[in-house]
Amino acid sequence: METDDDVPLILTWDDANSGLLNEETEGADESKYGGGNYDVVNNAVIATPGPQNYRSQNASLRHSWEMNYQEAAIYLQEGENNDKFFTHPRNPKALAAYLFAHNHLFYLMELVTGLLLLVLSLCEAPAVPSLRLDTYVHATLELLALVMVAFELCMKLRWLGFNTFIRHKRTMVKTCVLLLQFVEAIVVLIRQTSHLRVTRALRPIFLVDCRYCGAVRRNLRQIFQSLPPFIDILLLLLFFMVIFAILGFCLFSPNPSDPYFNTLENSMVSLFVLLTTANFPDVMMPAYSRNRWCCIFFIVYLSIELYFVMNLLLAVVFDTFNGVEKMKFKSLLLHKRCAIDHAFQLLVSRQRPMGVSLKQFDGLMRFYRPRMSARDRYLTYKALNTSGAPMLSLQDFYNFYEVIGLKWKARRSGEHWFDDLPHTTFLIFKGINLLVKSKAFQYTMYVVVAVNGIWILVETYMLNSGFSWSRFVPWSYIVFLTIYGVEVLLKVAGLGPMAYISSGWNLFDFSVTVFAFLGLIALAFDMEPFYFIVVLRPLQLLRLFKIKQRYRNVLDTMFELFPRMASLGLTLIIFYYSFAIVGMEFFADVIFPNCCNTSTVADSYRQINVTIGNRTVLEEGYYYLNNFNNILSSFVTLFELMVVNNWYITMEGVTSMTTHWSRLYFMTFYIVTMVVMTIIVAFILDAFVFRMNYSRKNREPPENPEEENGIVFEVEVSRDEALATLELYKQTRLGLSLLSSLQGVLQAMDRGGHTSLVYQGRRSRTKSDLSIKMYQEEIQEWYAEYSRENQRLERVLDSPVSEPPPPFTGPQGVRT
Amino acid sequence: METDDDVPLILTWDDANSGLLNEETEGADESKYGGGNYDVVNNAVIATPGPQNYRSQNASLRHSWEMNYQEAAIYLQEGENNDKFFTHPRNPKALAAYLFAHNHLFYLMELVTGLLLLVLSLCEAPAVPSLRLDTYVHATLELLALVMVAFELCMKLRWLGFNTFIRHKRTMVKTCVLLLQFVEAIVVLIRQTSHLRVTRALRPIFLVDCRYCGAVRRNLRQIFQSLPPFIDILLLLLFFMVIFAILGFCLFSPNPSDPYFNTLENSMVSLFVLLTTANFPDVMMPAYSRNRWCCIFFIVYLSIELYFVMNLLLAVVFDTFNGVEKMKFKSLLLHKRCAIDHAFQLLVSRQRPMGVSLKQFDGLMRFYRPRMSARDRYLTYKALNTSGAPMLSLQDFYNFYEVIGLKWKARRSGEHWFDDLPHTTFLIFKGINLLVKSKAFQYTMYVVVAVNGIWILVETYMLNSGFSWSRFVPWSYIVFLTIYGVEVLLKVAGLGPMAYISSGWNLFDFSVTVFAFLGLIALAFDMEPFYFIVVLRPLQLLRLFKIKQRYRNVLDTMFELFPRMASLGLTLIIFYYSFAIVGMEFFADVIFPNCCNTSTVADSYRQINVTIGNRTVLEEGYYYLNNFNNILSSFVTLFELMVVNNWYITMEGVTSMTTHWSRLYFMTFYIVTMVVMTIIVAFILDAFVFRMNYSRKNREPPENPEEENGIVFEVEVSRDEALATLELYKQTRLGLSLLSSLQGVLQAMDRGGHTSLVYQGRRSRTKSDLSIKMYQEEIQEWYAEYSRENQRLERVLDSPVSEPPPPFTGPQGVRT
Repeated sequence: METDDDVPLILTWDDANSGLLNEETEGADESKYGGGNYDVVNNAVIATPGPQNYRSQNASLRHSWEMNYQEAAIYLQEGENNDKFFTHPRNPKALAAYLFAHNHLFYLMELVTGLLLLVLSLCEAPAVPSLRLDTYVHATLELLALVMVAFELCMKLRWLGFNTFIRHKRTMVKTCVLLLQFVEAIVVLIRQTSHLRVTRALRPIFLVDCRYCGAVRRNLRQIFQSLPPFIDILLLLLFFMVIFAILGFCLFSPNPSDPYFNTLENSMVSLFVLLTTANFPDVMMPAYSRNRWCCIFFIVYLSIELYFVMNLLLAVVFDTFNGVEKMKFKSLLLHKRCAIDHAFQLLVSRQRPMGVSLKQFDGLMRFYRPRMSARDRYLTYKALNTSGAPMLSLQDFYNFYEVIGLKWKARRSGEHWFDDLPHTTFLIFKGINLLVKSKAFQYTMYVVVAVNGIWILVETYMLNSGFSWSRFVPWSYIVFLTIYGVEVLLKVAGLGPMAYISSGWNLFDFSVTVFAFLGLIALAFDMEPFYFIVVLRPLQLLRLFKIKQRYRNVLDTMFELFPRMASLGLTLIIFYYSFAIVGMEFFADVIFPNCCNTSTVADSYRQINVTIGNRTVLEEGYYYLNNFNNILSSFVTLFELMVVNNWYITMEGVTSMTTHWSRLYFMTFYIVTMVVMTIIVAFILDAFVFRMNYSRKNREPPENPEEENGIVFEVEVSRDEALATLELYKQTRLGLSLLSSLQGVLQAMDRGGHTSLVYQGRRSRTKSDLSIKMYQEEIQEWYAEYSRENQRLERVLDSPVSEPPPPFTGPQGVRT
Repeated sequence: METDDDVPLILTWDDANSGLLNEETEGADESKYGGGNYDVVNNAVIATPGPQNYRSQNASLRHSWEMNYQEAAIYLQEGENNDKFFTHPRNPKALAAYLFAHNHLFYLMELVTGLLLLVLSLCEAPAVPSLRLDTYVHATLELLALVMVAFELCMKLRWLGFNTFIRHKRTMVKTCVLLLQFVEAIVVLIRQTSHLRVTRALRPIFLVDCRYCGAVRRNLRQIFQSLPPFIDILLLLLFFMVIFAILGFCLFSPNPSDPYFNTLENSMVSLFVLLTTANFPDVMMPAYSRNRWCCIFFIVYLSIELYFVMNLLLAVVFDTFNGVEKMKFKSLLLHKRCAIDHAFQLLVSRQRPMGVSLKQFDGLMRFYRPRMSARDRYLTYKALNTSGAPMLSLQDFYNFYEVIGLKWKARRSGEHWFDDLPHTTFLIFKGINLLVKSKAFQYTMYVVVAVNGIWILVETYMLNSGFSWSRFVPWSYIVFLTIYGVEVLLKVAGLGPMAYISSGWNLFDFSVTVFAFLGLIALAFDMEPFYFIVVLRPLQLLRLFKIKQRYRNVLDTMFELFPRMASLGLTLIIFYYSFAIVGMEFFADVIFPNCCNTSTVADSYRQINVTIGNRTVLEEGYYYLNNFNNILSSFVTLFELMVVNNWYITMEGVTSMTTHWSRLYFMTFYIVTMVVMTIIVAFILDAFVFRMNYSRKNREPPENPEEENGIVFEVEVSRDEALATLELYKQTRLGLSLLSSLQGVLQAMDRGGHTSLVYQGRRSRTKSDLSIKMYQEEIQEWYAEYSRENQRLERVLDSPVSEPPPPFTGPQGVRT
């Protein structure tokens, strides 16, 4: 039976427990820690029912604590997810909607709906041939997806309330797009034929808005924030382009054999394409053949535009990016702190307003991490409690987000996994362990890999070009594979499976070797497509780059950058999607073999039979393949446009078959990809330089060598503590499965005969950890500023603390 | 008559004044400032002959002071030019050679010789047709130039001494190249025909070594310092390339219509070219037309190589560059400090070892800046003397390099240049002044410029393409030009000519307007080539960019970067030169119309007559123009290769006419330009970000608004001081022309009736000034470290201070 002597300092959603406050006020003035009996068990205060308690056993009081736990958990979630506090649920009805809309099932539904809408374009009007669906099928599917989106929006409306809902810009845009799409889908369904549906380009909004695409949203915001300086320099670029276009027109238009400058429009287009260097020597040649000094015009133009202003563009974006990254970090950090403040206020009781007891912490965790085992909860609490006081102070609680992600594990008493094995076996494994850890073994493997590399190169070089690779297993392949296999086995045996897979490089070796084995098996069964895997084997050579420190740095950075790179890639794909839809709507089926005969690039689209000797050969200018006939082709075409080489051939081809306004599409696409690409470059530069500065600043190796790859916390648990905690948890309504982990701790102590066990919590280091270390001093300033600001606000408002402060937007108004 | 009571603390080149030390030692223990009578005139101590002086009037003593002044001046010069101290002249003979080799005439000779050698290639064997010279003529010219280089080297040998000479690496390389070239030139002269002279590619060494090309040498050093990390990442790049080449060969070689992957070599070349994107959609097309999924191979390859590793390359170089720039700045700073230390030791006397008097300072300046007027010398001394003590302490003297470059001018008492004019005129000018300074006037001009811009655009657009521009003066041109002319006149009148041209933007307006007038005159006289100037008039539009702060920042940065950019460009041209020579030696005349029929790029070289209807048109693939037939063509071809678009057409053309080893040349060139270009990008990034950080750090406007564009010092001179100084200078053997400036000061005082005048010294801000401000704190540390190091050295060596310490190379061994 649960009882509690403490009254929450703040009562939340108070329509549910009205009157509680009046009823209990007389207890509020008791001395801080004097409200009950406490079993002080090694620093943790656990409240047990004391004799002088108001044994009202008030269900309402318990209920109000539960509500507080839940709201605190929601605050912490909002801090973690960087949700604005003005979307915080205000009443129990909103809470229900909030809870419904914040779980992985709902998120997944959002994601699936968003993806479904995007994937539909594979089957709609200019469809991929094998996936074509009838109009009524895809229109019905679309309607279905849209209804689901509408349902999601309704839930959001219910949670946010009407006023907040219409203030939330992203949601409003989504609503408008949804309405538009609804109307269109119904029209399509009625007419049974697709009209010009450019609005499909807006579909990615549904994907971007879903919870799992937070990274993409952040990228988009960063791109928009970097836009103003970008546009400024772009104008400079275009300005020079126009000046040179006028100049070029005046200089070269008298030359009748120069098609690039015969009108002002052509002159501008030529110089725009020249900016991307795609037509470079060609655009110069007619003028150059007339007068050799004409090259000065082009050299000056390229030097100014390509080698100076374009680099300036990168510099300006890089500079902005730097600032934006720091501001973002700052406002994230302060948002989290604000969330913790809110949660803390909800967790303390009126009797003890300065601390959170284990019981309250556990109540919080029941809502915040329902699946976390009792042991881990307790360990998290202990890890937070650095000061050794009987309760968590606000300062302790500020570390919440650093500690919550830890994975807990008992520290191994022994050094190796095979310590407990019989002596002979132990010796064998110990030998293997020493072997695989020796330098000689490592370098032998490097030599083997290098020999393998040279072997592959020579072998490939010896093959004739007509040779069909998949029919033949070279013996060297089997030999090297055996060596790698043995290496993997030795390493697994010597280091133990867990230690082995904890290293990224080992994991890489392992997967490459396993893939190679699979390839061999596939070869044995004559399965064609598997020879992709066979040719992947040169990847083993990547291991050679482990030897040098710089490569390790670079490759580690690469792995760290990967998630962010992936999200940037996704952002790019979203732009692609919109452009692909627009391209398909306007340019589908305008390109075909032997089209574009009126343009200057007709050769690239020609497909003719040429008779050489007595043989007829099909001579192809393959460019008709770069079309917008379906979404997959469009993506490939857009990628080619992004690489900007020869993109003007596609542009001119399309233009000659449509109007010359089509060029606008291609030029816009170029500028958009230029923006995104510049951001990507700035991102890589920033991340890399940051990482390098970090490792220079922290050159001394960490005290604990294990910290190199992550954050490690250590907590010691004594038998008495464990027992007391178990006792406490038994009182709460905790599931047996979660409790068993705590019993496991006791059993482990009994088995080993220890009176205490040390647990290690571990997580990988994130960029945020690095930033915290880099900006240490500034962070203190930010915090000071933040608390000054908070106090000022409190004074100004003179309102109870439960009123959430206005949404925190960071001092420079940067939205996070 | 000059006399001096003080004995120098250190005697230099002491073979000239042996015995002086013994003779004078009894005076050494006198109290610090008690050695003579001093007229203490407003803080400056000027030694006049006192009655108790050792009136030995020792010519030897005077001589030894002169020697000390000279050596101190040389030390300061070495500090300024960043010459190593181990090349310091050691004895009077070396001194003579040093002085001979360190004046502008000698530098000019070096430069001319270097340029002559480079320019010779215009006339040698594959010569520019109009400049071809006979073999004996250019070989004789070459021999002449080489003899001059040899003479320069002899002077250097005499100055450095044999031991230092052979230790100086750059000089040794130069000597070897010189010998080689000598032999070759003689062989050419004897055989009367040029052989394969690839060694001509080494000629730029003579240019690079000359004094005026110091910036190029620094760039080259920076490039070499950035090479190790660059090469590492390049290996990673090539590694992926090889892996993908093997993979591509295995995947695509079975396709007979795919010429890009039919052998392993072709596969590698194709992927190398693909790295530069020059062959992009084409290389994919044959495979893509067979199987649409093949595009994944190319997309993955480009994503890894182009979008990731290439950016990583930039990041790594940028990171290194950052560090190198700072180290360079540090070691330059400490080198200067070291030079000042040496000079100071030579300037103090045994009686006053802690200070430099005006007289000694003046002696120094006589050697260091012989052309500086007496007034400026005195003002410089006063500017250094910040502490107000009667002599310059070492701390004062440390500011030497900051002060020496100042341009001195009496501070204007009035605000405007027309203050002294009669009242009516004054009012008129005052009106104009107010007008041109008003916002309304500025914005009116912006509007005029904008209208002009639109006008030009529209006008050009309306022209027919066949129109001959130079025959026709549009009336709008005259109208706008008149407006600009009036504006210039008003501004000159309102601000005064000096204030007008002190602003870069005004200068720009002025020159554009003047050029436009010249263009008009040229048009009036029907001079064709001047219409270049006419079409330059859109440049007026650049003024519009003044409106926005960001553009002002960017354009100011542009102007600040310009000298450095120019030196980087020169460095690039030197690489170009070497590659052009090699290209000419191997590929001259291999390319001609209709060549290369065996290659895949034959079309680009074809020149055929095509009959369309009844007209015969010459259809040209102009690529035969991109050849190595003479050095000018080679430069253009190399520029095209640098832009990397379609460069493979030139490569394949040349390869098909020679051997496939020729590709090595083109690929090496690509990699070299990639290095230089990456450095340039890193440089722009670094300079820009530095500048931005600087302006953020110093956001508050400087106290003195004039300081915005430069460094300003102010010094007040009283009448008494000026008189006393004049007296002192009359004693020294100063030329009358230099003295007159000081008399001018007195006259100005008399005229204005002032008892004192304030002078302003002004110079433009350099990057070094910015760096000093940026790294303030670190600089203090460096200095502390430096003096600790110095003291340690002195203790270790226990040698007289006159012995120069070993050359300072900076703590990380970075050479400056």
